[in-house]
Amino acid sequence: MSRTAAKSHPAADASFAAKLNAAAAETEHLLERLLDAAAAEGEIARPHRIVEAMRYSGLGGGKRLRPFLTVETAALFGVARGHALMAGAAIELVHCYSLVHDDLPAMDNDDLRRGRPTAHKAFDEATAILAGDGLLTFAFDVLARPETHPDAAVRIALVMGLARAAGLGGMVGGQMLDLAAEGRFGKNDTPQGEQDVLTLQAMKTGAILKFCCVAGAILGHAPKARLDAVSRYGQVIGQAFQIADDLLDVEGDAATLGKAAGKDAAHGKATLVDLLGVAGARARLAQLVLEAESTLAPFGADGAILRDAARFIAERRA
Amino acid sequence: MSRTAAKSHPAADASFAAKLNAAAAETEHLLERLLDAAAAEGEIARPHRIVEAMRYSGLGGGKRLRPFLTVETAALFGVARGHALMAGAAIELVHCYSLVHDDLPAMDNDDLRRGRPTAHKAFDEATAILAGDGLLTFAFDVLARPETHPDAAVRIALVMGLARAAGLGGMVGGQMLDLAAEGRFGKNDTPQGEQDVLTLQAMKTGAILKFCCVAGAILGHAPKARLDAVSRYGQVIGQAFQIADDLLDVEGDAATLGKAAGKDAAHGKATLVDLLGVAGARARLAQLVLEAESTLAPFGADGAILRDAARFIAERRA
Repeated sequence: MSRTAAKSHPAADASFAAKLNAAAAETEHLLERLLDAAAAEGEIARPHRIVEAMRYSGLGGGKRLRPFLTVETAALFGVARGHALMAGAAIELVHCYSLVHDDLPAMDNDDLRRGRPTAHKAFDEATAILAGDGLLTFAFDVLARPETHPDAAVRIALVMGLARAAGLGGMVGGQMLDLAAEGRFGKNDTPQGEQDVLTLQAMKTGAILKFCCVAGAILGHAPKARLDAVSRYGQVIGQAFQIADDLLDVEGDAATLGKAAGKDAAHGKATLVDLLGVAGARARLAQLVLEAESTLAPFGADGAILRDAARFIAERRA
Repeated sequence: MSRTAAKSHPAADASFAAKLNAAAAETEHLLERLLDAAAAEGEIARPHRIVEAMRYSGLGGGKRLRPFLTVETAALFGVARGHALMAGAAIELVHCYSLVHDDLPAMDNDDLRRGRPTAHKAFDEATAILAGDGLLTFAFDVLARPETHPDAAVRIALVMGLARAAGLGGMVGGQMLDLAAEGRFGKNDTPQGEQDVLTLQAMKTGAILKFCCVAGAILGHAPKARLDAVSRYGQVIGQAFQIADDLLDVEGDAATLGKAAGKDAAHGKATLVDLLGVAGARARLAQLVLEAESTLAPFGADGAILRDAARFIAERRA
């Protein structure tokens, strides 16, 4: 937990951390069970190497923030936790695939992810591409199962929502804008204004974070007004998530190397921190936390954990 | 059309070719409409470059054999052609994604596909990876729409079937076995026996061809015995498709370069032609056509077009 949050809400903090960690452990366990079953089933033996690469990329890490958001949003609507975890696991598989493909030499060319070699370093490039493809495909397999929800109409709504959040108008399109923002395809494509940066972020990381919350509402057959409320909440915390990330990028580098500008600046990529300054970005972040809290008003005391989540996302230090 | 088929069934042939071409044109038109709508919709502008790469890779080519199989299988069960075309288009999107990723430098490193530069040559590697990801994701978006079928249970069954056919136990696992068969990861993984080759092919190309036929039955709420019949048909023509491919590989090279062995042999990869010889492979192919025809017996005269399809697949020259 962040220092600020720990200072201001020590009791809420301990309880929030416990809930976040519990959901992470359950997600890890579920993903392991799902991947192992997929590797074992059917008449046809699965190639060992691709199974290992999918396990390597899908298991063993992260805060599992996305499944947590699905589980806690679903809880607002009385959804069985097992269903929410299945949907959350599917979303996490898409998140993991996106990390594997974004790290590839042709994309961001990263060698390390959470202190471990990236998939193409631990295995090889072909295996990493295929493992990403396999994780993305497997996400839809998981969503389609009755264990995710007994109602086929709910499951197909989840499939549609995930495909939209991950596709051309979401993650895939956002990663493309991100590459363009680095000047990969000539300077003309480079977004510079605040609206361009917000659009890029809303697509690349925001769409999936928003869908995590929408998924909880879909699972709970939420009435439209309440679905819209958690959708707006998801959108706002997505923006907060990205500003917090950009602040970490700047402050991390400044602290360790004395460089004024971090990785994004080195790539010639504008962030909200560049456009608003550090103080301006912090003010925007505080404003977004307030907005996230206000979107939860209809849920009263039940919204407490999601209010904590908004503060956690804004104040995280890693 | 192939020379053999043209010789033995001239009238059936002309009618078959007309039907194949009609379905290809309808699929092309539908894919173009779907991709253009996806590029235009929503508040967020889609990045031009990824849209172009997805259009480049998804449009403008091929026999569109997969949608044809879905349309014709669906016709056996009285499915509206528009529904079958939507499902067929989704399957074709997965086929197109697999070609884009398989062609990548880290995979098969092909510069040409159907006489045009491959996606990573026409654009760049990052764009090709993302275009493939986008096409795969879009396939599930298309399947999830009510235009594919009004019944959500049917749509979710299609999602499940496509995810399985494309995933670890299908296309992704099969491509991994294929890379292993070339000795990429050491000789231990190399399949050599007939069963190994059949397994690789059943996963890499067979699973999707089989699913094309199963999809038609799912769309038509087919009774189990009839679904099993078209599933078996799809499995058999998948095997025939691959043997025909292997024969083309050997004969193409022999005719042009006088080399006894083609591309597969150059990669150290066993095919059924290696294992059975050209005459043995031809005999197996003839046997598979007979078997495909016999699986269609329950459909009587209605199965004529799929019988023609089996012969077309076995006798094709390109």
